Amino acid sequence: MKSSSYLDALIKKFSKLPGIGTKSASRLAFHILSMPTDEVESLGRAMVDLKKNTFTCTICGGIADSEVCAICHDDARDRSLICVVEDAKDVLTIEGTGEYRGMYHVLAGLISPLDGVGPENLNLRTLAQRCGSGAVREVILALNPSIEGEATSLYLAQLINPFGVTVTRIAHGLPVGADIEFADNATIIKSLEGRVKISR
Amino acid sequence: MKSSSYLDALIKKFSKLPGIGTKSASRLAFHILSMPTDEVESLGRAMVDLKKNTFTCTICGGIADSEVCAICHDDARDRSLICVVEDAKDVLTIEGTGEYRGMYHVLAGLISPLDGVGPENLNLRTLAQRCGSGAVREVILALNPSIEGEATSLYLAQLINPFGVTVTRIAHGLPVGADIEFADNATIIKSLEGRVKISR
Repeated sequence: MKSSSYLDALIKKFSKLPGIGTKSASRLAFHILSMPTDEVESLGRAMVDLKKNTFTCTICGGIADSEVCAICHDDARDRSLICVVEDAKDVLTIEGTGEYRGMYHVLAGLISPLDGVGPENLNLRTLAQRCGSGAVREVILALNPSIEGEATSLYLAQLINPFGVTVTRIAHGLPVGADIEFADNATIIKSLEGRVKISR
Repeated sequence: MKSSSYLDALIKKFSKLPGIGTKSASRLAFHILSMPTDEVESLGRAMVDLKKNTFTCTICGGIADSEVCAICHDDARDRSLICVVEDAKDVLTIEGTGEYRGMYHVLAGLISPLDGVGPENLNLRTLAQRCGSGAVREVILALNPSIEGEATSLYLAQLINPFGVTVTRIAHGLPVGADIEFADNATIIKSLEGRVKISR
């Protein structure tokens, strides 16, 4: 039994969010209760704003405030380099490194025949247009090293090939800080295949 | 760089919540983006509702929809038993077991001289009134086994004593499923002190 129906309702809603269990949901609800009312309102507004005021960027397919996202709008970025990712979340992850200065292209999925997802379901039309514009020098495929990721990479390599644009994919191997002893076989095989010459 | 300022704003707000890091905050924001607009609005409303429409129960000090909370309102519960807890969150935890059928009393803190919290800062006036009403048979102290919890328990035992009400405290000992080998000294000492006779 809950002492308040409002408390009960919010805990139920919070616990439906990903990664939030019942315990975290009640902790969050009690935190909301301890926050100033205007901050709670502002959090609620920020959620509705994100939902109502964002668009899919007509160039890269990422999340945008208007027709074109802030990254595609930025003249300081290298327009000859396109990093292809599975979804808009990956843009955030790569931007988080602060190292990449090129553009992005969000596929909004991966080719997966078992799930009925074919190339026609991905955001590929604009990618072909961008590669055909003559301004692009290299396309980096930053897809997960899964069966679907590999299949999509192969498909993209064939799709982009006619435009005379270099296609690369990010390195798969031992993550930084990992121990060879505890690495899985598939990762060790990938790291051997992708070995890099360091002298002569 | 974020592709959308709305996305950026919501991730920042989410990451201020307890137990939510930057990664979880972006995951939540992208989940919000994938939810139907009416569900997002309803989540926002539930947060503001909790903040605006709840009261402190005038009887137990818990979270209530009106002057008196649903638990204090429920005639099916045992009014002769009061479980004293530190905060309203603990009511939820104990109710979660589904075993306790008595009433509650929320102190909204623990006596802690170092933090400048004395008995006068706790919700004690109504507890004395409730104990003095003649309807209460037993008060169970369910406070954390910390220095503040012990000090508060001692103070409450003295406060309630004149009313001729039995005061008990929850058992402190080895948690269910734990291994004696890995238990800390304080827990083992508590479990020896609180030993229970099982035959003769």
